[in-house]
Formats: sequence, C-alpha cells, structure tokens
Amino acid sequence: MSIDNSPSFDNSAAASAARPSAHLPVPPVCVLGMGLIGGSMMRDLRAAGVECFGWNRSEPTVEAARAEGFDATTDLAAALTRAEENGALIVIGTPMTVVGRMLDAIAEHAPTCGITDVVSVKGAVAEEVAARGMSERFVGAHPMAGSAQAGWDATVEGLFDGAPWVLAYDLADEYGAAGKAVPGRWLEVFAQVAALGAALGSQLIPATSARHDDAVARVSHVPHLAAYAVATAGDAGGALAISLAAGSFRDGTRVAAAAPEMVMSWCENNTTPVLTALDDVIAHLTAAREQLASSGTAIDLAQMGHRSRERYEARPASRPVFRLRIGEGQWIQQLRLAENVGGQVEIF
Amino acid sequence: MSIDNSPSFDNSAAASAARPSAHLPVPPVCVLGMGLIGGSMMRDLRAAGVECFGWNRSEPTVEAARAEGFDATTDLAAALTRAEENGALIVIGTPMTVVGRMLDAIAEHAPTCGITDVVSVKGAVAEEVAARGMSERFVGAHPMAGSAQAGWDATVEGLFDGAPWVLAYDLADEYGAAGKAVPGRWLEVFAQVAALGAALGSQLIPATSARHDDAVARVSHVPHLAAYAVATAGDAGGALAISLAAGSFRDGTRVAAAAPEMVMSWCENNTTPVLTALDDVIAHLTAAREQLASSGTAIDLAQMGHRSRERYEARPASRPVFRLRIGEGQWIQQLRLAENVGGQVEIF
Repeated sequence: MSIDNSPSFDNSAAASAARPSAHLPVPPVCVLGMGLIGGSMMRDLRAAGVECFGWNRSEPTVEAARAEGFDATTDLAAALTRAEENGALIVIGTPMTVVGRMLDAIAEHAPTCGITDVVSVKGAVAEEVAARGMSERFVGAHPMAGSAQAGWDATVEGLFDGAPWVLAYDLADEYGAAGKAVPGRWLEVFAQVAALGAALGSQLIPATSARHDDAVARVSHVPHLAAYAVATAGDAGGALAISLAAGSFRDGTRVAAAAPEMVMSWCENNTTPVLTALDDVIAHLTAAREQLASSGTAIDLAQMGHRSRERYEARPASRPVFRLRIGEGQWIQQLRLAENVGGQVEIF
Repeated sequence: MSIDNSPSFDNSAAASAARPSAHLPVPPVCVLGMGLIGGSMMRDLRAAGVECFGWNRSEPTVEAARAEGFDATTDLAAALTRAEENGALIVIGTPMTVVGRMLDAIAEHAPTCGITDVVSVKGAVAEEVAARGMSERFVGAHPMAGSAQAGWDATVEGLFDGAPWVLAYDLADEYGAAGKAVPGRWLEVFAQVAALGAALGSQLIPATSARHDDAVARVSHVPHLAAYAVATAGDAGGALAISLAAGSFRDGTRVAAAAPEMVMSWCENNTTPVLTALDDVIAHLTAAREQLASSGTAIDLAQMGHRSRERYEARPASRPVFRLRIGEGQWIQQLRLAENVGGQVEIF
C-alpha cells in the first residue's frame, strides 16, 4: 500500500458511477496482517457481506477487532488451515520484511489457495513467490490508498473506494509473449483478485510488476528522495532561508515529513528502478548545473520540466476503460493496452 | 519580486496587529515599471495618501492606470525630473534586464534621489548600482509577494500586507564591519525604503544581498529546478507512471508549472548561489544513490531530510522582532541578529 492517496484522477466520480467489475464473485478472504490496509479491507468486506477472517501477530489488534465483531486470530496455522478448507483468497497485508515467512506458512498450511498481497512494491514480492514455486496461484496487487497512519485503530470503511488497484498480470504477460496458454489456476486467482478490488470499489489498473515498480519509483519513491535532498539543502541556509521559505519550499518538501523507515521500505525493496529514476533526476540537475555554469542559464531543464508538468496537468479526468473477459480473445492485449495508457480494465 | 507568496509564517496575524514601523515618514514615490508589483504598490500608496507617480514603457498600461485616476506617464525623463524636484524615492520595478538602463536614466535625470528596487535577486542589482557609483543612495528591497500573474491588470490592493519585505543593508554591514560611520545619505534612504515597506504593511526583514541571494537560491530557485527534474523523470515513465502519480508527485512538481522564463530570470541573475545550492542537492542525491547501490538503503539522506523538514515545521509562528533606531547604538548589530534568526526589525 502507498500513503500517496491523494487522487490525481477524479476517482470519486468514477466511484460513484456504476462499478463495471463489481459483479465478479468474491471468494472468502483470509487477511494476513490487520493493519491499515488489511483491517480496512476487512471492514469493507464485512459491509459487502463477503466472508472474511483475519490473522494478526499482535494480541491487542486481534482483541480490538473481535470487540467489533470481526473474525480474527493470532494463530497463523489455524487461519491458513481454515483458508484452505474454505477455498479462500489469501491477502498478505504484512510489511515486506515478513512476506517470505507468510509464504512459507501458506505453503505449509494452505497449499492450494489463491494468494495476493498489498505491498507497495511488486517485483520483490513476486521474487519471493517465484523462489517458492508458487507463481501459478499468485497475483500481486497494489491498492493505492492509505495514509501516514498505521494499525487497527487507523482502519476505516471506504478506504479503497475509487482508488487505483494495480493488478500485476506478470504471468499472463510472460505466457502470452511466449505464445503459451496461461494456466487455468492462475486465471482463477486473477479473477479473484480483480473481484476483490472491484468489491472494494477500486479502479483495476493492470501493470506488470516491473512496469509498476518503475512507475512508482518515478512518481513516488524518487520524489520522496528529492524532497529529502531539497529540504536538507534549504535547511543548510539557516534561519534566514527558512524564514524566507514560501510555497515552493513548503510544497516541494512536504513529503520529507514522511517517516524515513516507511520511504526506505519502498526504496530498499525497489532498488533497481529507484536507481534508474534517481540517475535520471541527478542527470537532469547535473546538466542544468553545467549549462548554468557555462552559459549562465538552465533553460533546457526548465523547458523540459515545464512541458512534463503540463502533460501531467493535461492527463484525462478519468482513466480510459478497456473491456475484457479473462482468458478470452485478445484479453492479454487489452491488459497491455490499458497498461500502456495508464487505463483501467472492466471485466465482464 | 517573487511569486512564492504563500506565507510560511502567519503573516496575516502579524499584519492585523499594529505595524511597529508604520509611523516612519514616507516620501513621495516614483515607480518605474507598473507591473504586478509596481502597480499594486501604487494602489496601496494612493490608498494610504502617499504621493505616488509612475512610469511605464507601454502606452496601454499608462492609459489603463490613468483611467483609474493614477498619475502615470510613458516619459521616463519627465518622471525622473519630477522625482528629483519632489525628493521622491525611486522604486525600480522593472525586469532585471533593464535595471541598468533605469539606473543610467536616474543618474542623468534624478541625480540625488534615493533608489530602491523590487527585483527578486539583490546581488545583481547591487552590482549594477555599484558599477555606476550610486551605492550610497541605494537600498535594495525584495517584497516577497506576487503571483504568476503579471502586468497592470494583475495589480491588486493589499498585495504586500503581512508579506516579507527584505531590506538589503549591505552598506551598513560593510561600513560597520570596517568600523566606519555609515554615510548619512544612505541612512536616509534606508529609512525611506523601510518606511515604504512598513506603509505597505510588510514585515521588514534585514539581509545582505549575498545572504538573501543564498537563501532564495536554497528555498526557491533550486526547489524550482528540482521540481523540473522530478517532473521530467516522472514523465519519462509514460502514461502508466502519470496515471499512478499521486500526492508526492503532484506537490513535488507543482512549481514546475511556473514559466521557465520567470524561473530563469532568477537563476540567471543568481548563478553562484544557485550553483552552490544545486551542488548541495546533487551531492545529497548522489550520496543516496551510492548508498542505495552499495548498501541497499538510502536511510542517511532520508533521516537528514526528515529532520530538516521537522525543523522547518517547528519554526516559530511569528518572526522574532528586533527593535532599533536607524544609525543609533548597536543598530547594525540588531540588523545582523535579525538576519541570523530570520527575524524582522521594528524601527522606532
């Protein structure tokens, strides 16, 4: 999950319209990790009448959830055994650091369940999954909702309504590119994960793990690093500089208020895309520096950056919609088209 | 002038309180360049009952001002001759590119008037002044108010109310450091320029040209360059990246919407401080890049940047106030103290 929940698109308008994929059948859901994302998901699923049960390591969280009538346990084996018996979709809602442990437990106690996750990076999770040979029953997701808050006390209803729900369609992309049929079990899990996002009111946005991680490196992870650098350089100007700081400094360094540990949980699990995007930013600033030193102007970067911001501001008010039936006809092509234009898919 | 007019401090509260230096006598004011800053200044001065007349190169601007009853002309020699006859304070409100020409005209037609300017950089203006031997009757200013709008049509009343009014006290700083008495004529002009800022309701913030230019490079000019670089790198991620962009990208690149020509008018006239601050930002990002590549984390920059932002957020709600009488006692020391803490001065 990402704390960058301020919508760029008019998600609220989309949310209040009919939800095209909301008819998809949602299986029982087993949530591992009842923090902001996992816990809020349980609230919405209960409200939607979907069978849902959760596991959390901490006893107080489970007690707090139970006090509100939620079905929760601190017994991981029991939760996963129940998931297996009920044909549940397992949602890994823990920090990245314990994803491997969750997968090991799933392999032991829920050997056939579909699996998804709500971690902010997708490649690192997919690697853990692949290392355990579980890729054919795994479809990663990134619900781009959240806040700087954490834990059960931060959970709310409606958190995902109108938010992007990135669907990592890696296996379809790979098999499709190789001209091979996508495994039927994976198609079922893909449908389950799409159904979950749709039931929560989100916009389904397909992206391979690699494309997703590159994108968030460029529009979230590196912007956070840039904010840290600008804040540090401004602070070095002392009290006079801070006294004269106005809108550009305030807004440009806003996310430097984000907890270093949270931002690092993204960057440390997305190093290659972050390095690529960071190198881009450094190269642009270095070119501007050289031009300013040699020619007395940095107009080239100013014009490029201005055009880029203009393109951002000119993006469509709502995401283009691509309709498809999972596993049928040109459906993988539809996923790729949607990915290429940052569009959403409607599954019918 | 700067477009960064969003106040960091609670300027409105300060503005609604008594204005400590508002009793200073304001001389007649001759405004050269009736754009957003110069024109808005004329509106406020007329409202305050101060004799005020303006010059603008463009006939339509002068006609529009005259239609509203303002005293304006396209005849520069006439305006300056009148300034000389009336003992007016001349305000250079033109772009930096024509400041030299304005000074030449002042030297010819208004050989004794006090001079100030409202350009966003102070060192470049001070150099033009010094090159003409006019430093003893010049006190630079930077009213940090404005908007992305320009021209007479953008002028409004109250633009400067509660805004910072930076007073470049270079000559007092130099003479004071050398243990020499500050020339009396300069003291008179300093009082006039302070009186002008006070009459407009601004907070008087002393800073030498060098300290001012370093500060604004760090908190405004380089943040704009960083926004251009982050916008460019994000845009390179294509439609998917832009579709997934949320709060950090939106706020971090907001000022990339600023016109490249305007941002360059700052950077091109403030190259050394901008290069220094830009080198700082590049060094921080490069160190983060190296740490991430070698150790898999960029926690050092994240922690530094986070602390810097926390310091910014913890700045006092209002600027500390230093009281002084121009030319008396430890007044230069008071200016320096105020500069060091980003404080304002109260002149009594």
